[in-house]
Amino acid sequence: MHQPGRQFLHTPGPSAIPDRVLNAMHRQPLDLSDPQLAEIVQSCLDDLKLAFATAGDVFIYAANGHGGWEAALSNIFAPGETALVPETGYFSESWASHARMLGIDTQIMPGDIRRAIDPDRLEATLRGDGAGRIKAVLVVHADTATGVASDIRALRAAIDAARHPALLVADVVASLGAAPFRMDEWGVDVAIGASQKALMGPPGLAFIAANPRARAAAVSVSRPRHYWDWEYRAGVEGYRRFCGTAPEHGLFALQAALNMLREEGLVAVQHRHARLARAVWRAVEAWGVAGDLCVNALRPDERSTSVTTILTPSGFDSGRIREHARECRGVALGGGLGALAGRAFRIGHLGDLNEPMILGCLAAVELTLRDLGLRCGRDGLPAAIESLASSGSPPGAPKTPRPVAVPA
Amino acid sequence: MHQPGRQFLHTPGPSAIPDRVLNAMHRQPLDLSDPQLAEIVQSCLDDLKLAFATAGDVFIYAANGHGGWEAALSNIFAPGETALVPETGYFSESWASHARMLGIDTQIMPGDIRRAIDPDRLEATLRGDGAGRIKAVLVVHADTATGVASDIRALRAAIDAARHPALLVADVVASLGAAPFRMDEWGVDVAIGASQKALMGPPGLAFIAANPRARAAAVSVSRPRHYWDWEYRAGVEGYRRFCGTAPEHGLFALQAALNMLREEGLVAVQHRHARLARAVWRAVEAWGVAGDLCVNALRPDERSTSVTTILTPSGFDSGRIREHARECRGVALGGGLGALAGRAFRIGHLGDLNEPMILGCLAAVELTLRDLGLRCGRDGLPAAIESLASSGSPPGAPKTPRPVAVPA
Amino acid sequence: MHQPGRQFLHTPGPSAIPDRVLNAMHRQPLDLSDPQLAEIVQSCLDDLKLAFATAGDVFIYAANGHGGWEAALSNIFAPGETALVPETGYFSESWASHARMLGIDTQIMPGDIRRAIDPDRLEATLRGDGAGRIKAVLVVHADTATGVASDIRALRAAIDAARHPALLVADVVASLGAAPFRMDEWGVDVAIGASQKALMGPPGLAFIAANPRARAAAVSVSRPRHYWDWEYRAGVEGYRRFCGTAPEHGLFALQAALNMLREEGLVAVQHRHARLARAVWRAVEAWGVAGDLCVNALRPDERSTSVTTILTPSGFDSGRIREHARECRGVALGGGLGALAGRAFRIGHLGDLNEPMILGCLAAVELTLRDLGLRCGRDGLPAAIESLASSGSPPGAPKTPRPVAVPA
Amino acid sequence: MHQPGRQFLHTPGPSAIPDRVLNAMHRQPLDLSDPQLAEIVQSCLDDLKLAFATAGDVFIYAANGHGGWEAALSNIFAPGETALVPETGYFSESWASHARMLGIDTQIMPGDIRRAIDPDRLEATLRGDGAGRIKAVLVVHADTATGVASDIRALRAAIDAARHPALLVADVVASLGAAPFRMDEWGVDVAIGASQKALMGPPGLAFIAANPRARAAAVSVSRPRHYWDWEYRAGVEGYRRFCGTAPEHGLFALQAALNMLREEGLVAVQHRHARLARAVWRAVEAWGVAGDLCVNALRPDERSTSVTTILTPSGFDSGRIREHARECRGVALGGGLGALAGRAFRIGHLGDLNEPMILGCLAAVELTLRDLGLRCGRDGLPAAIESLASSGSPPGAPKTPRPVAVPA
Repeated sequence: MHQPGRQFLHTPGPSAIPDRVLNAMHRQPLDLSDPQLAEIVQSCLDDLKLAFATAGDVFIYAANGHGGWEAALSNIFAPGETALVPETGYFSESWASHARMLGIDTQIMPGDIRRAIDPDRLEATLRGDGAGRIKAVLVVHADTATGVASDIRALRAAIDAARHPALLVADVVASLGAAPFRMDEWGVDVAIGASQKALMGPPGLAFIAANPRARAAAVSVSRPRHYWDWEYRAGVEGYRRFCGTAPEHGLFALQAALNMLREEGLVAVQHRHARLARAVWRAVEAWGVAGDLCVNALRPDERSTSVTTILTPSGFDSGRIREHARECRGVALGGGLGALAGRAFRIGHLGDLNEPMILGCLAAVELTLRDLGLRCGRDGLPAAIESLASSGSPPGAPKTPRPVAVPA
Repeated sequence: MHQPGRQFLHTPGPSAIPDRVLNAMHRQPLDLSDPQLAEIVQSCLDDLKLAFATAGDVFIYAANGHGGWEAALSNIFAPGETALVPETGYFSESWASHARMLGIDTQIMPGDIRRAIDPDRLEATLRGDGAGRIKAVLVVHADTATGVASDIRALRAAIDAARHPALLVADVVASLGAAPFRMDEWGVDVAIGASQKALMGPPGLAFIAANPRARAAAVSVSRPRHYWDWEYRAGVEGYRRFCGTAPEHGLFALQAALNMLREEGLVAVQHRHARLARAVWRAVEAWGVAGDLCVNALRPDERSTSVTTILTPSGFDSGRIREHARECRGVALGGGLGALAGRAFRIGHLGDLNEPMILGCLAAVELTLRDLGLRCGRDGLPAAIESLASSGSPPGAPKTPRPVAVPA
Repeated sequence: MHQPGRQFLHTPGPSAIPDRVLNAMHRQPLDLSDPQLAEIVQSCLDDLKLAFATAGDVFIYAANGHGGWEAALSNIFAPGETALVPETGYFSESWASHARMLGIDTQIMPGDIRRAIDPDRLEATLRGDGAGRIKAVLVVHADTATGVASDIRALRAAIDAARHPALLVADVVASLGAAPFRMDEWGVDVAIGASQKALMGPPGLAFIAANPRARAAAVSVSRPRHYWDWEYRAGVEGYRRFCGTAPEHGLFALQAALNMLREEGLVAVQHRHARLARAVWRAVEAWGVAGDLCVNALRPDERSTSVTTILTPSGFDSGRIREHARECRGVALGGGLGALAGRAFRIGHLGDLNEPMILGCLAAVELTLRDLGLRCGRDGLPAAIESLASSGSPPGAPKTPRPVAVPA
Repeated sequence: MHQPGRQFLHTPGPSAIPDRVLNAMHRQPLDLSDPQLAEIVQSCLDDLKLAFATAGDVFIYAANGHGGWEAALSNIFAPGETALVPETGYFSESWASHARMLGIDTQIMPGDIRRAIDPDRLEATLRGDGAGRIKAVLVVHADTATGVASDIRALRAAIDAARHPALLVADVVASLGAAPFRMDEWGVDVAIGASQKALMGPPGLAFIAANPRARAAAVSVSRPRHYWDWEYRAGVEGYRRFCGTAPEHGLFALQAALNMLREEGLVAVQHRHARLARAVWRAVEAWGVAGDLCVNALRPDERSTSVTTILTPSGFDSGRIREHARECRGVALGGGLGALAGRAFRIGHLGDLNEPMILGCLAAVELTLRDLGLRCGRDGLPAAIESLASSGSPPGAPKTPRPVAVPA
């Protein structure tokens, strides 16, 4: 059906792509041997290192986030080796399942999908692995299914406290760019990102950052691999970087997006995500006061700034929200996944987003909830506006608004 | 300064351009003799006739709206002939001034810029012109400076009641597409439109619709003219249509935009504009209850569905709203014009617009008003949402929302 | 009919638009009060002054080249005043006819359409105008119908030699950017350009450069005008520059195109046009040796570097070449115009063009000529290649190719 | 360095992308659950089946051609199983090396890189494998390094004649779309394609077609895999098709490109490739008569219609041709690969290509050869033009050109 106006894309990825990025893709391919291509790749790699905050190596794959998982797993684990996956929700589940498909002995560390990963439990689990069989701990930084973000630094501390040699592998697909992440400082060995979330590009690229410890571990792993192989891709010939033809248009887009990130400033981008996320939480809380909705993440400091998962009343099929919002109210939302299927919907608030975009989204969500007869407070938008009005100046706003002399 | 996210363009023109229209422009030129070009032009002319609701002739000019004025005036008036311009605000003023520059004896019929043109007054004025010196009445359908729309049909009735031979010339630049307009049925002789308002294209094209009576009048007008001349442009050779090279990319864009209008349905488009406009009025009224703001147009039935002009407190420089909104809150608004300079701001709500877009705009306006210390009620967004929730289904919405059984 | 591959657009305007220019147009409009818009306009005006080589004023119109003619004529001539138009071909004819429509007493100075305007004849004609009735001489620099270019500097010298006060007005629509033009140095008072030729933009903008003498003359001209009026457009308020809404997308494109011109270097661009034009002439001459074709312009130093007009055998309808080339051989050519209708075709070689583009065009023209049974030599391409190989290095080519030691 | 005009991209992939395909990519992402996405994917799969001429399954991967190799190898071979790779040139070499990295016991069947794979030799080799250890024969249909194409149908006949159970796996990356390929009819079990060659898209997608025999074989292969796994991707849930997020923009482009292929007609596209390839061969032969160049593929019926590899004189570094052509003459060519490194260059003539494009390319190549002092005949272009003039009508050309009566 024809829908006038701009679609508000508020799934937790892919996210809205800036015009500048789309324009960067709107061009003829480069001859693969053209020096301009090498420059573009280098510019992307340099900026990705800044985004990961690492001095390690970064690899770019023509693949999606699951391809990124496979790249990390293939290099680190031989079949039969052991991974520990702390439960965070649908994406820890999927990753664990992916690992099993690759012949990896995968242990789940149970968790509460409304809470961050418990570092104490991780420490205890690793202490229990006296034989040191666990080769790596695979953690999802922000599980987009639950909207919960874990404290990566604390998880590294837990591993260290347990004096366990496990590598720390972090899926930062949903968080990279949107939330602080400092790979080297936090002791992460491998991190996995993708192009279509806070990095504002089209889907189609996965990124791996690997520190020297991970690179060294990979060398001795006995698993046949080539496309994903770090050692091969690290070779000097340009075509090895991508194990064949470079995904040029993805790279053109990525370069433009990373330029934008750098120009706005990584910290400013993260601050912006946090401001907009708070506005969403205030709205959901205001709707919930008189109603049936609540943010899944129980603790404010464990909420992802990329996506908010909202629980719906039992007995109501939350899938209707997604469908109705998209078909009738012009906003695309995420649905409930895994244990939350049918019981939640999700608002993505990541990427190239600003205040009127998120406020327009929230208003359309409220219209959707009302259309479907869900009880919902009327103060959602005022609460979100209040949050933005009072939570510090938006970029460029005068620090102290000039006073207005209005005659009574 | 870098601003993340999409700019919300809420000036009363140019308006947001749909991606499909931008894509249509993103192409190489056509050889001017390519039959495809003739087909595109014909498709535009056919659709413009539907938009004007006329069986008369339509002319497309590489020009802006002022060029459209000049095209109409040049064909209808010899120097020294007389025009009557009912005052509606800044645009009636500008048009009258334009007419004077073309040597036309221009009379202003005074009016109230918070009200529509008074048909009785028009009738009386014309009755006073016993000599029939007034050759045409030039009315602005929706004056974008004031947000007031006049009743064109009533004005024609007034002319007829006065038994005056004056032509009726309507500037529908801001209303065409957004509000009902039926040129032939309403007895309009000449109508003037432009590409960059509700027709969703880039600025650069002006349109004239002229009925046989206007065409006949033009033939006998003694004024040297060529670029604007209808008679010349009506010739059979293709290059005469544009008096030279066709503005191809404007036409590519126009064709795509008119296709979209036709697909959505002209009546549906006007209904959508009315729904979104009402949401804006509800918000402004809610802000105003506790505050200092009000809609300029005094009567609801005289409000333009394209743009709302909002009066600000005396003593406050309304220009600050426009600047702050654009620089700090991500929304581009119109300023006060003419008599309202410094005393009003304007929200454009025309073109390719939907609910989350206008709601996001309104929320950003509220943030702006608060930033600048203006007193303003907090119920603006709830009122706008309520208006949309209750004012009929949006396109595609189920007529009767399925009831939800939520356990208490 | 579907045609694979890129269309070769070799009409003498519009010309191929660079991707960078199309990308610049692929964006949302700017709020008309956005300071970015003023910056873009200023950048365009500054670069146009460089292109015209003038310290005078430049005006940009939403219009086509004929609109540019009208702008110049409206400002300079009151009805009844006299213009002298030296005959150059279809475009001098059209311009004269345009002038007459504006009430200007227009005298044609006869000429040979295979030769440049004769300065001696101009001098004699002006000497014959003892009363000084001729207010301005209107010359087409490169008449795209004939492919002949005149020597503007010599024409100014002729006017001066006749001690005649006439203004010199030059149509440089087809030559601006492609051929040297130095308005101030050559004593041109008004020059008229357009966007869609060597300036590489989409059609839709006309440019006027006017020196102080022309500006002064315009002030005293008694002709009602507004859209075209220089005095009004020279006012300080931004909206006066365009007499209303700015043609934003045309300006976005223009800025990008002028940036490209500046980066390549205006002299380098002209040198490139001359090189490519020579290759075309060599090809036509080689086809003609055994055949029926010749370049219309009799003297090499009077050939336009923008377009070559090629005469076809009498008895052959040259319109078939244009149609067949476009429908079957993938290249769009110009047809014969005016006195040359049916007797010539034209190859445009202006704008964003390089060697393989013009050589591919020439090869497709040869295929067309053969398809239609015209006698034509087989050495056209070798001659064109030889011309390019020997006529100096292309941009970036090593000055002295490194010698190759190939074993016999 | 700035280069005016359009770059002629004549590497054997990526190839020039049609504007329509670039426009299709220029859009916002779709919500992954939007039914429109499923429709786009289905349209791509249906059209790919037509392109492969198979009733089997097609899988689309976010990956490049090497990813396609890995997908095929991972599903068909357990580590330790045996592959036979007939030597064709650099790409058979690379594929064999890729197979070895995946732990596959890889045998090379030696060949002549100027000739197609010898079916008799294949039959003999397979007869020699009495134990049936060879699980699959991996053949490159058109090796882009050598420009030689093999007869896939004859290779299947050889396998059958040897009564060997080996699967036949064909890399049709360079030929798919450009040359006839009928997977089911020819008895190919698995075929591998990619987006950036004759399919006219940006690089980033690999395609696998697998018949039921291959699918059955894959099920029993004991190799840990997930991203590449056919069985998983064949599942009903939409997200399984891509093992995660769909590469949306690649799919948008692919759909548009496949629509174009279907509209032109697959047979017409192949015919067009053959015509243009012949023109290239005629040019190279004419250059070579007086010079030092020859087509690598010894037999005309074994030449690829996608790419022509041209041998250069010994003692000359052919890399200079590629660099000079790109930097100075505006055309991007392929270099020599593998055994031909430094001894050959390659002209890609595949994808969205027409006559003036390939003729312009050839002319620029001739300029390059002359610049570098290589001996080369002057009749290259006339020979290419003659080939096109006489080799049947181009699309849309009148079957019998109307005779022209030209007076002597």
